[in-house]
Amino acid sequence: MAIEHALPGQAVDVRPLEAGLSTGKTTALFKSKDLEVMRLVLLAGKSLPPHKVPGEITVQCIEGSIDVTAEDKSYVLLAGQLLYLPGGVLHGVTALEDASALVTVALKK
Amino acid sequence: MAIEHALPGQAVDVRPLEAGLSTGKTTALFKSKDLEVMRLVLLAGKSLPPHKVPGEITVQCIEGSIDVTAEDKSYVLLAGQLLYLPGGVLHGVTALEDASALVTVALKK
Repeated sequence: MAIEHALPGQAVDVRPLEAGLSTGKTTALFKSKDLEVMRLVLLAGKSLPPHKVPGEITVQCIEGSIDVTAEDKSYVLLAGQLLYLPGGVLHGVTALEDASALVTVALKK
Repeated sequence: MAIEHALPGQAVDVRPLEAGLSTGKTTALFKSKDLEVMRLVLLAGKSLPPHKVPGEITVQCIEGSIDVTAEDKSYVLLAGQLLYLPGGVLHGVTALEDASALVTVALKK
């Protein structure tokens, strides 16, 4: 199934999924030249294993709460909080409760 | 007065300002190598005049509603909606009602 990506100027809904969270899936919102944006959905206790990307990242917790680990440090993000991580840093995410988060990645050539 | 910028891993509050919106100010959250993130605060009827930046941008309406114009097209963004714009495009923002929005800019060398 082709992934539908947003076009420039097309409004994408990034509100909490709420009742839809338990059956929600991680979704790529768009990937363009300089930026990639996705909504990460993780249920309580589930993890995104440690990985790294060349460019900087912002993580914005939309609902629930997540633990972001980066370079052996751990940061708790609650709904409505955002953090950024430098590029090239090994990082992982674990949901402390059912959660969704907006992840923005600066793409490097 | 020095602007306090967030450090990597530091959680920044991006929830609606609500009662604080009417006295809120546009704030730079951080500016790093690849990304710049700010919260734009615009009261009803106020505008950010047309301008352009080299890199791509996402605009996420946190509360209220805004009209984003880019290349003579106009896009209405409601709270909880996000759009992206290509780099190098002349764009402006007008608040349709008191609004705050998270703006992420991909920085180009």
